[in-house]
Amino acid sequence: MTPQSPQQRLQSQLHFVMTLDRLKTVLRKTRLADGSRWENSAEHSWHLATMALVFQEYAPPTVDLQRVLPMVLIHDVVEIEAGDTFCYDPETTQDQAAREQAAADSLFHQLPRDQAHTLRALWEEFEAGTTPTAQFAIALDRLHPFLLNYANEGATWKQFAISADQVWHRMQPIKAGFPEMWPFVTEIIAECVSKGIIQHH
Amino acid sequence: MTPQSPQQRLQSQLHFVMTLDRLKTVLRKTRLADGSRWENSAEHSWHLATMALVFQEYAPPTVDLQRVLPMVLIHDVVEIEAGDTFCYDPETTQDQAAREQAAADSLFHQLPRDQAHTLRALWEEFEAGTTPTAQFAIALDRLHPFLLNYANEGATWKQFAISADQVWHRMQPIKAGFPEMWPFVTEIIAECVSKGIIQHH
Repeated sequence: MTPQSPQQRLQSQLHFVMTLDRLKTVLRKTRLADGSRWENSAEHSWHLATMALVFQEYAPPTVDLQRVLPMVLIHDVVEIEAGDTFCYDPETTQDQAAREQAAADSLFHQLPRDQAHTLRALWEEFEAGTTPTAQFAIALDRLHPFLLNYANEGATWKQFAISADQVWHRMQPIKAGFPEMWPFVTEIIAECVSKGIIQHH
Repeated sequence: MTPQSPQQRLQSQLHFVMTLDRLKTVLRKTRLADGSRWENSAEHSWHLATMALVFQEYAPPTVDLQRVLPMVLIHDVVEIEAGDTFCYDPETTQDQAAREQAAADSLFHQLPRDQAHTLRALWEEFEAGTTPTAQFAIALDRLHPFLLNYANEGATWKQFAISADQVWHRMQPIKAGFPEMWPFVTEIIAECVSKGIIQHH
């Protein structure tokens, strides 16, 4: 393989950056806090990164804080090719991993090789969810749509008839990844059940 | 002042995080790369942060890379109160600083005092634009809408009849903040002028 010239390197990075723009057109199954519209994955990723910043003091001591922001910034970029997968839909979650691996192959390949390797490793770490850093990022990623749904009176929970059990299971990573938040989560679930925003069964 | 309890601290951080959601409803005067709609300031901030990540190797050596991502993530949050100000509109840019200072007072005040101080200092550093770190962040912030306009065939430039001189002046911070990019910028301006996407005068 011929090494890239500095101009080619910058061009390939520019190409990747312009491809990222498409994440703004990938819609999630979460509405904004004011309920006005669906959220897209780019603004979700920004909100998640600001949460990582504001809540960094709660990261367990083994979390590598320098990796958290880069990780949450790129954690959803494969959706540009693979689309958003609704976490409560067993059919689409079944082939999610395969679709996203193929998307990662195509997407990160646009970057210079060293950089493709670095960013893909960050993404793989998030996906595997075995390091404390990934577990903190995943806890925030679960918490974020939960907080938006709490604010918009359960738009997703009501539309898709999600039960308290389903929400409770989905929020489990918060216990280890962001333990100080767990009591709030269980309180909010109880409150939403009592208000009929989350179905009891 | 009574010190906050840990619960009050977490509550105030949650409150701030939920306020940030409103940045998703602040529209800029830039359209997405595919031209389909206006971009909002939350997804702009995400895109900028990914650019900071991909282009970090070009940051001048005096840039504090640990501060760049937090800085670009929060650089526009005052727009939640103050709105987006179109950079080529002399009327609204006139009182922009005053409006944004008032917004910063109100917004960062939601956080625990130590954290309000840290995040506001980051925002003030970006606004002042005197440190190498801020200058790198500002270069990216100028480059981002420029690249989107290049991709969408100058939607902003055409709609508001922006001249090559105006664009060239607006892009000046790229010279010092991201020097490797400057030749691309001048090439793109020349190309857009020759295509009639940017007005010559």
